[in-house]
Amino acid sequence: MRRINAKRLLVGEPLDTARLGETLLPKRLALPIFCSDPLSSVAYATEEILLILALGGVALLHLAWYAAAAIVFLLVVVVASYRQTCHAYPGGGGAYVVSSENLGPAAALTAASALLVDYVMTVAVSVVSGVAAITSAIPSLSDHQVGLSVAFVVLLTLMNLRGVRESGRVFAVPTYGFVLIIYVMFAVAAVRLGTGATIRAESAHLPIDAAGTYTGIAVVFLALRAFASGCTALTGVEAISNGVPAFQKPKAKNAATTLAAMGALSVTMFAGITALAMAYRVHVAADPTELGLPANTPMSTALAQIGRATFGDLDFLFYLLQAATAGVLVLAANTAFNGFPMLASILAKDHYAPRQLYNRGDRLVYSNGVVLLACAAIALIVAFDAQLTRLIQLYIIGVFVSFTLSQAGMVRHWRRELASPATPRAGRVHIHRRLAINAVGAVMTAVVLVIVLITKFTHGAWLVVIAMPALFLGMKGVRRHYDRVAGQVAVAPGDRPRKPARHHVVVLVANVHAPTLKALGYAQGLRADTLSALSVAADEQEARRLREAWADVDPGIPLKVLHSPYREVVGPVVSYVEEAAAAEGTDVLSVVIPEYVVGHWWEQPLHNQNALRLKAKLLFTPGIAVIDVPYLLESARHPQPQPRPQGEAAGL
Amino acid sequence: MRRINAKRLLVGEPLDTARLGETLLPKRLALPIFCSDPLSSVAYATEEILLILALGGVALLHLAWYAAAAIVFLLVVVVASYRQTCHAYPGGGGAYVVSSENLGPAAALTAASALLVDYVMTVAVSVVSGVAAITSAIPSLSDHQVGLSVAFVVLLTLMNLRGVRESGRVFAVPTYGFVLIIYVMFAVAAVRLGTGATIRAESAHLPIDAAGTYTGIAVVFLALRAFASGCTALTGVEAISNGVPAFQKPKAKNAATTLAAMGALSVTMFAGITALAMAYRVHVAADPTELGLPANTPMSTALAQIGRATFGDLDFLFYLLQAATAGVLVLAANTAFNGFPMLASILAKDHYAPRQLYNRGDRLVYSNGVVLLACAAIALIVAFDAQLTRLIQLYIIGVFVSFTLSQAGMVRHWRRELASPATPRAGRVHIHRRLAINAVGAVMTAVVLVIVLITKFTHGAWLVVIAMPALFLGMKGVRRHYDRVAGQVAVAPGDRPRKPARHHVVVLVANVHAPTLKALGYAQGLRADTLSALSVAADEQEARRLREAWADVDPGIPLKVLHSPYREVVGPVVSYVEEAAAAEGTDVLSVVIPEYVVGHWWEQPLHNQNALRLKAKLLFTPGIAVIDVPYLLESARHPQPQPRPQGEAAGL
Repeated sequence: MRRINAKRLLVGEPLDTARLGETLLPKRLALPIFCSDPLSSVAYATEEILLILALGGVALLHLAWYAAAAIVFLLVVVVASYRQTCHAYPGGGGAYVVSSENLGPAAALTAASALLVDYVMTVAVSVVSGVAAITSAIPSLSDHQVGLSVAFVVLLTLMNLRGVRESGRVFAVPTYGFVLIIYVMFAVAAVRLGTGATIRAESAHLPIDAAGTYTGIAVVFLALRAFASGCTALTGVEAISNGVPAFQKPKAKNAATTLAAMGALSVTMFAGITALAMAYRVHVAADPTELGLPANTPMSTALAQIGRATFGDLDFLFYLLQAATAGVLVLAANTAFNGFPMLASILAKDHYAPRQLYNRGDRLVYSNGVVLLACAAIALIVAFDAQLTRLIQLYIIGVFVSFTLSQAGMVRHWRRELASPATPRAGRVHIHRRLAINAVGAVMTAVVLVIVLITKFTHGAWLVVIAMPALFLGMKGVRRHYDRVAGQVAVAPGDRPRKPARHHVVVLVANVHAPTLKALGYAQGLRADTLSALSVAADEQEARRLREAWADVDPGIPLKVLHSPYREVVGPVVSYVEEAAAAEGTDVLSVVIPEYVVGHWWEQPLHNQNALRLKAKLLFTPGIAVIDVPYLLESARHPQPQPRPQGEAAGL
Repeated sequence: MRRINAKRLLVGEPLDTARLGETLLPKRLALPIFCSDPLSSVAYATEEILLILALGGVALLHLAWYAAAAIVFLLVVVVASYRQTCHAYPGGGGAYVVSSENLGPAAALTAASALLVDYVMTVAVSVVSGVAAITSAIPSLSDHQVGLSVAFVVLLTLMNLRGVRESGRVFAVPTYGFVLIIYVMFAVAAVRLGTGATIRAESAHLPIDAAGTYTGIAVVFLALRAFASGCTALTGVEAISNGVPAFQKPKAKNAATTLAAMGALSVTMFAGITALAMAYRVHVAADPTELGLPANTPMSTALAQIGRATFGDLDFLFYLLQAATAGVLVLAANTAFNGFPMLASILAKDHYAPRQLYNRGDRLVYSNGVVLLACAAIALIVAFDAQLTRLIQLYIIGVFVSFTLSQAGMVRHWRRELASPATPRAGRVHIHRRLAINAVGAVMTAVVLVIVLITKFTHGAWLVVIAMPALFLGMKGVRRHYDRVAGQVAVAPGDRPRKPARHHVVVLVANVHAPTLKALGYAQGLRADTLSALSVAADEQEARRLREAWADVDPGIPLKVLHSPYREVVGPVVSYVEEAAAAEGTDVLSVVIPEYVVGHWWEQPLHNQNALRLKAKLLFTPGIAVIDVPYLLESARHPQPQPRPQGEAAGL
């Protein structure tokens, strides 16, 4: 069938399950896969700080130094904290798992809600920011930001449906390329500035139209808001602790090392970019008119301005910078494509999410989760018109909710270890140190969470404050449903299958044709206690034709014809069957439906509409079983692509 | 269930089929139901003529007189022609039926394609024009034309799903109100002009920015284009001849009388409005800038300008005019809501359209056709941004295709009657007269069709020229499919139901719980030759747990556990069952699937995903029957709204 082939073309042949072991990651591949998010966020974190400070005019831009310093400090604390998590949870220590084990289900679900929201935001923000890097280099694409962003999300989705290992290879080049070109830029800048050159960004001469006069406490508040926006630099730090099981052995150690490497890269790149932005006097604003430019002037990102100013005539390096930035940002979204489906699968396993998120697809990835994430991100991008600054307002809250819960959980974890008599005396010093690190992390991230909430609430963050509890309640509802069902279907001791007293069979007859004959033959093979046929006719004439055709094939089965002047089939049949079933008491009534099977999707709506509706209604009738006897039409008899056997038929 | 209740609230309780007889229409109700389209089109026909002529500047506006005169003449001819159809086809003489009987299937399908396109266009054009009447009176709504238009289509859909009779009552008031207010306007204008007043439209002083200089043949072409656009006044004339069976007896005579009344009303209103537009010097243009106004200036329709100028201080009469215009236009779309589903049903009966368009829904209307029409119209409105002048370009072609085919068919019909020896001599004079009328109609409408095609092709009509053949081929394809299937499933003489040699039953087991026990008991009741159970486990541990639970309930049935490391269920089960079925030869294998039945729609995605996919795949496996054994969870056991018995259980 064509559809199957299209799927294979896009996502590849099904993988054998034995190949899952092969997909374990060495550190050099784990870094680009898990760290493209925190590494790439340096591409926009500085700009978001400047954008907020610009509201207070040029005079307040120097506050960026303080905000950046605070963020660097915070980054070090959070990386140190999560290194502890890697050691404590080598099986994968996402905020959900850690909260669940140490703080109970309510905290775990809160963390899960926060993470789900932030995975979606990561995709949206990273992709939109990557597209901004492209349009900074090629201003003529400025009008197509939404379309480009959506296209990249679709591309990522297809890549991820192909499986995690192949993704890693694709991601290594732009991530390492991005890091390299940034350091090259630092080197060039250092040489040029060191030799006495004065470098100015293209926007340095533009006036900034302050949104208001900020004094006293208002300045502090603005600085805090700038800090809060800059905290995007921290997003995705937890990805490694989530993904410990994907590392090669020794898993925990490799993960912690990778995390440290990531921290070092992030801190230096963020600090360097911010320093250059200040040195070059980069001026940015949410709207070109605030810089005294005509509306709709395409604007370059801060990083693009720095790159253009630094490289000057070395054009190709500037374009390389923009390409690498776009590449790493679009791929940063991949962190979420790893994390979201895995978290959804864990939630499904714990009955907090629909069961179909639990299973891996035939390429050994959680296909349903991947598709769900992509749909949510595309919806956000379209709804916010691919505007980075508006999306950023929704970001970070979830990150810091999960940071705080995760670190608090770790504190509880270490305290429990200390309380356990099994813990060797010698190890206690280590544990005290780990406890201290996580405690500092918990307090710091909690403080930042409060700052972010206060400074961003009215700027769009309220949406997240609604979405998270909604997700929380939704997941609780799903769990409650599954629990209730489990209670209803539980087997009591002594329960045994109960054979019905008698078995009645009714064959539905639309016409006397080959599918009907096949169904009648099948029904005779059931050796039921009673066997009859049921049909519907609009008028006397139609009923007579039917009876004559029936007599011709002489099945020896009584035929009942219901009267339905406008050929409404479902209603009369269901009523009749319901009455019949109710009359039978403890007996069982099987309804046999001959069904056409066609081979092309477009043939489907031409057939079986009544059969489908009948089945849907009959399922609700107590005491009924529905038997489909398919009749394969020629188009369905062409050799079908056989599903590759994915399990052996050998008994365990 | 909530959904059912919502449906009942919106479309009403199911009607008993016996009530269909009650819905026959007296003339006074048939007029608004079938004629709101042609009557209401006078609201925009004049404006569309002026819009085209305005391209040539003020100097060419006087050509409107000629265009209008030609249209009036054409209207008389077409009405006269269709009166003959009413008499010849009292069972309903739509273009499809007439072409089918007289010109063969290709012509009939061409007519059907044309009609289907035009029904959709009628809805789109009428509703958009009605909304324009509203925004002419309330300019602040100008930004919401698309939203308002879609809302009206939805409203109409719901009204029509309630059934034809109730619709008629709702429609009488605005249709008659519209006719009345137009005549009142004529009276006021006559008195004021007769007493020497000089009345000028608000736009009379605006210059018209001619799109080019038109001389010689270009002027003729522009006049023809204006005439073609004005022909919208003729749309919907055929509705009555389609709907003859809905009239009270004597059906044909009543229909012909109603048609004549409609013609008289249309001609006088159209002529009057055009005369006033010329007298008041109404200037219109597709874009306000062509009238020297700033872009985005809300513009009034020509009719609104005439009304405002005529009524002057009598504000309330102006608002009444706009309300009645909006009302009759939105309801004009209803002509299509009557015609489209009925035509679709006839096409489905002839196997040219999917079978589900054939049946009436539980309110005795063709619900599927109504919904299909609404979706198509909404798509058009959104795609064309609710701009009347762009939509009008797509209109009319279909109308004149069906007019021409219908009249040509009538000519053939009368010639056949003349040739028949059964026709009494006395009647032949009458028949000659009818033949002459239809022949004139056929030639006239064919000429207009050519004019419309030539003048509108490059202005958007090419879309229709593509859509009609696409529909044509689609319908032919559906017919071919049904024919092929009918051949495949035909019963040869001597065919009898064949009981399978042996019957094998496999019960799919996900878990050992109550639904499984129920299914096992049911399967034991089938008295099959072999009975076994099949399950899937991810690992040894899970398999062991399953076997232990199985031993506890002791069903005495062998359990096979397939190995599937990542819980992929569908693939392994289908492979196993396929192999088993292939091994059985002429025997039959029944697969029993225990299924959860939940009562709320939102519970559905939480269950049975594997069961659904399994069933879909198993249907394609030869030699398999699929048995659903539903297990009703508590939420599904609440008393269900019983479908009202719509047929009696008495044998015919």
